Amino acid sequence: MAKKKGRSVGVIGLGSMGLGVARTLVKKGFQVHAFDVRANVVKAFASEGGIAAANPGEVGANASVLIVLVVNADQTDEVLFGRNGAAARMPRGSVVIASATVPPAYAEYLGNRLAQHGIYLIDAPVSGGAARAATGQLSIMASGHKNAFRYAQPVLDAVAAKVYRLGEHAGMGSKVKMINQLLAGVHIAAACEAMALGIRAGVDPNVLYEVISNSAGSSWMFQNRVPHILAGDYTPLSAVNIFVKDLGIVLDSAKKLTFPLPITATAHQMYLMAGAAGHGAEDDSSVVKVFQMVSGIPLPAKRARARPTATRRRAAAARIVAKQVKAPVKKKSANGKRKAPAKKKR
Amino acid sequence: MAKKKGRSVGVIGLGSMGLGVARTLVKKGFQVHAFDVRANVVKAFASEGGIAAANPGEVGANASVLIVLVVNADQTDEVLFGRNGAAARMPRGSVVIASATVPPAYAEYLGNRLAQHGIYLIDAPVSGGAARAATGQLSIMASGHKNAFRYAQPVLDAVAAKVYRLGEHAGMGSKVKMINQLLAGVHIAAACEAMALGIRAGVDPNVLYEVISNSAGSSWMFQNRVPHILAGDYTPLSAVNIFVKDLGIVLDSAKKLTFPLPITATAHQMYLMAGAAGHGAEDDSSVVKVFQMVSGIPLPAKRARARPTATRRRAAAARIVAKQVKAPVKKKSANGKRKAPAKKKR
Repeated sequence: MAKKKGRSVGVIGLGSMGLGVARTLVKKGFQVHAFDVRANVVKAFASEGGIAAANPGEVGANASVLIVLVVNADQTDEVLFGRNGAAARMPRGSVVIASATVPPAYAEYLGNRLAQHGIYLIDAPVSGGAARAATGQLSIMASGHKNAFRYAQPVLDAVAAKVYRLGEHAGMGSKVKMINQLLAGVHIAAACEAMALGIRAGVDPNVLYEVISNSAGSSWMFQNRVPHILAGDYTPLSAVNIFVKDLGIVLDSAKKLTFPLPITATAHQMYLMAGAAGHGAEDDSSVVKVFQMVSGIPLPAKRARARPTATRRRAAAARIVAKQVKAPVKKKSANGKRKAPAKKKR
Repeated sequence: MAKKKGRSVGVIGLGSMGLGVARTLVKKGFQVHAFDVRANVVKAFASEGGIAAANPGEVGANASVLIVLVVNADQTDEVLFGRNGAAARMPRGSVVIASATVPPAYAEYLGNRLAQHGIYLIDAPVSGGAARAATGQLSIMASGHKNAFRYAQPVLDAVAAKVYRLGEHAGMGSKVKMINQLLAGVHIAAACEAMALGIRAGVDPNVLYEVISNSAGSSWMFQNRVPHILAGDYTPLSAVNIFVKDLGIVLDSAKKLTFPLPITATAHQMYLMAGAAGHGAEDDSSVVKVFQMVSGIPLPAKRARARPTATRRRAAAARIVAKQVKAPVKKKSANGKRKAPAKKKR
């Protein structure tokens, strides 16, 4: 019985990340008690082997390790401490794994508040997106008491490919995640700015993607998001609004530290422009549409089918970019018979 | 004799990039005629197997493939068309490989002007830094007439690991390079901003580097430049002034196209701030010192020896970041005897 309870886990928030995590846990043999404000999503998850809860408190009563994967700090606070909240019904010594991207100061407050209930916090923002949530391959930037890690390790191992242990201080996980979001947000906006200028200057965007991906100008986000632009497919894998929020957290947190972030602030404005133009719910690569709106540059149109695979994309680029030819040049003819270029008038 | 002449090549500009290229060509059996405004540098190169020229024209008279690796467009123009310039003495049908980072519009002009002399241009900016110049591992973003490539291919093969063929239009190589520099420049400045905020927020910078390098916030430049900050070593591998210049070229070229670049413009200001503070000749990661100046954050001090190797850096980070432990948790004790965290007052 005790052993069975050790395999029982709660998940609150069944969005694209939370649902992936919850399904992964079911797949790996955990009893997963789950809640989401959307009752139909909970019901659907129950039909896949999960256990539906009527409210967060019911999850808390049935699981002594609880993953909270809602959107932000307000929602985290609500499901833990609001009406029918989980914290009041969790046993002493249980563990909350808080995985929303939140201000580091909130994570510190949350650690203290949960401690008043005798509950451990693992401040554990995640990275990797919905695809890696679904396969149990997330990266987790985690800080918390060593006892909490000891108890929750099987759950963390089930959902993550890599767990960074960042010490015992609640807030450290969220600080590292905040810096990651700063860079991720800037890199996406910069990728959009760069591709837009390239198109304006008359460079084939597929060639540009191919060359830059293999050069010093590359970034993880450039390689990940530019294919959306090339495919003309702005189906949100992560939406513009997420970075309106996350860079907002970065800037607010820095302001509290009286710390200037000129590039981050500018990137944030680009996401706000995309949001103002009505693209807030679209893929974050929609920042490139701001440049289209003001300059009329031609963006690649949506292709008839789904996004091209990496293989097909590379094949397309290879038709244009001739790779280095290592074949030896015939020296005689090269020296003897070369033609001078035609004169051109300037 | 004709064959011997086919192995003869000219290099004008023996800076950190040009000297690496020239030495590589000597190593690979070419006769390398070289010129630099600094006579002592030319003399030193001659003692390593190169052939000293008294002026650019002398290089042009002895080589029908000429690599120009000076700092900018002005210098390129001067060595080709100025007093004792190379172009006037190069035979018809010979090839200039112009590898400085220049405005695309200048590359277009240069192609036309050389054509009036019956000389081909390969617009061929390089990427990879001094280290890869020295080992013949550069990336070259190249456009030009197919005859030019046919004739110059052995030289390109000798100095580059990868040659991107970007069509026949002079200017296309420089356009792609310009976009690469936009991103490279933004990524370095963003890496400095991110590391500075992390330090201000109390995150160990070694841990931050380790986690971000493996996360979605990473970039080629983050991984390459942040170790300089961690080592407190601002010996210039590429100087702040290079990006003052290169982002200046990007912004000027975009202005001619009436194209806005909000993030690039902000990054350019950060390099100008670093330059204004007297760090123009130091490593471009010195942008982080601007944040130190205004906020007093503690940057890692210079270590006693040279930069740490990647291995030693990783070992240092590993002492702090405990990696994921896949060992199974003892479930009985974990379930039965876990301790509740101590209550804390907020």
